[in-house]
Amino acid sequence: MPELRKDPITGRWVIIATDRAKRPSDFTRQSVVIKGVRFCPFCPGNELRTPPEILAYRTRGAANEPGWSLRVISNKFPILRVEGNLTRKAEGLYDKMDGVGAHEVIIESPEHFQTLADMPEKRVEDLFWAYRDRVLDLRRDTRLRYLLLCKNHGEAAGAVLEHTHSQLIALPVVPKRVQEEIDGARKYFDYKERCVYCDIVAQEAESAVRIIHESEHFMVIAPYASRSPFETWIIPKVHNSHAENMSHAEIHDLAPVLGTLLRRMNSTLENPPYNMILHSAPMQDQPMPHYHWHLEIIPRMTNVAGFEWGTGLHINPTPPEEAAKFLREAPG
Amino acid sequence: MPELRKDPITGRWVIIATDRAKRPSDFTRQSVVIKGVRFCPFCPGNELRTPPEILAYRTRGAANEPGWSLRVISNKFPILRVEGNLTRKAEGLYDKMDGVGAHEVIIESPEHFQTLADMPEKRVEDLFWAYRDRVLDLRRDTRLRYLLLCKNHGEAAGAVLEHTHSQLIALPVVPKRVQEEIDGARKYFDYKERCVYCDIVAQEAESAVRIIHESEHFMVIAPYASRSPFETWIIPKVHNSHAENMSHAEIHDLAPVLGTLLRRMNSTLENPPYNMILHSAPMQDQPMPHYHWHLEIIPRMTNVAGFEWGTGLHINPTPPEEAAKFLREAPG
Repeated sequence: MPELRKDPITGRWVIIATDRAKRPSDFTRQSVVIKGVRFCPFCPGNELRTPPEILAYRTRGAANEPGWSLRVISNKFPILRVEGNLTRKAEGLYDKMDGVGAHEVIIESPEHFQTLADMPEKRVEDLFWAYRDRVLDLRRDTRLRYLLLCKNHGEAAGAVLEHTHSQLIALPVVPKRVQEEIDGARKYFDYKERCVYCDIVAQEAESAVRIIHESEHFMVIAPYASRSPFETWIIPKVHNSHAENMSHAEIHDLAPVLGTLLRRMNSTLENPPYNMILHSAPMQDQPMPHYHWHLEIIPRMTNVAGFEWGTGLHINPTPPEEAAKFLREAPG
Repeated sequence: MPELRKDPITGRWVIIATDRAKRPSDFTRQSVVIKGVRFCPFCPGNELRTPPEILAYRTRGAANEPGWSLRVISNKFPILRVEGNLTRKAEGLYDKMDGVGAHEVIIESPEHFQTLADMPEKRVEDLFWAYRDRVLDLRRDTRLRYLLLCKNHGEAAGAVLEHTHSQLIALPVVPKRVQEEIDGARKYFDYKERCVYCDIVAQEAESAVRIIHESEHFMVIAPYASRSPFETWIIPKVHNSHAENMSHAEIHDLAPVLGTLLRRMNSTLENPPYNMILHSAPMQDQPMPHYHWHLEIIPRMTNVAGFEWGTGLHINPTPPEEAAKFLREAPG
């Protein structure tokens, strides 16, 4: 019997199609293979072929020279620009404003063939330090309300260059999905006087069926109303609305947790393309008792997102309990 | 300068990336080619190899025999079933219910190589008559709140079988996107005492820049806050919340309008895969002064929906004014 499940945060329903439950081997593979390229602008030695660096972690060399382990640059083809103003303009009944923002790229490693799954933990950790550094800098511009950290791994997930990198998009608006989470979490808090994510962490710890991995500071779960097969959330155990307020111990713990998850996904799903999105409270806002930052990782197992995207109706052929079991037991 | 545009119905923002505006020839092609298959369960003569027909338009033959021009059957692998009940069950803080519903397939033509773009207009018209017939039947089951008509054209858009068909999914809940539209349209109506879609039709008629095509009863536009390149809406000019209440004249007019649009998309975008989704008010509800049914057609030009899907932040590299111009001037 298929099941309709409701996401306790946003209230959306998802169809868990248990009758045609799909195991990892049932999906068509789109394995990510890093082939190497003749010229890679993200490789050391080519620093002058990219926009100048905004931030770099380096042991030697001057700015825009080799010697870095992580490098943040402006996107060469930005979707938003710092110029302009946020005055809303009417166009009849429509509203528009200048595309004010920033669009940066975090090059996570100087090594072309490394991925988040197999690079040294310190480099994974540095991705989150770089995110934090960029929040602290960008939030001084009070026009910018949100800093989105996202990663497209593999061409099928939207990556254009194969050298490992993430994107930072500073926005004058809060992305819809995050706003829905904040609104839903607030309703829950108003009624229960508890954070819904904290309650999820507690309930998942008790039932254990959707736990993929657990560390001192994080719980890794297949969410109850997963929209897609093997969707995974990494949730901090201690309440905190803003990812940039993570403790040093948490950032240090997050790197092996993420690495372990990605290696398990790679062995279970044969190096799938994936999207990773950090959900955090808007950076100009005060700490929120009702919202809880987390990391969402969505392997791209199917190519039917158009229908889901157009309707908001998600059909998931792999129950999260089964997905969690596969990922829990995989080598990683 | 990139632009942030707000959808007047749902309030979502979209980034129109004018700086890297993409023309039709800039996209990687995933042209849909109907190849023919050794065995097609949807071809005449194979009626007994599918679930029995629920509805058929035929000039000769008995049920489940050749002689039909359109045939509605149950989906062999349904995502929802008629059995079960809608009692919500708690699972700790989570909610679930049985996956009650119906999942049917409309085979739009007996001819394997026909598509909606090149079949006789009467067959396109019959798709909407079949939708109406199924609403009138299914809405007698008051557990079913919504009948979703959607079409995946081409493998890249999620089609599994290539023989032309649409899907009908009867749901005990309203899809999130439709509910957001209804909620947003109600807010607009509460303030303006006018339907936002009627206002859009009026404004688009006046400015003309986003009009793709127009007929006696329909306006075909590239919406102001298009989420993806060449997204197209077909909106009836006369207010009506429920597609099943279309007049005979409207259904008759819709077929050539849709055919023309699809032929223009085919010539401009080289037979793109697409999703077509009918947005209509929930079938148990009374006519709504604030909601307005319409048809959304979304060609699948890019494969980066994962990020958009995960954040709700849409980045559209083709301004709708340019998309409309290409489609307006294309042969069709």
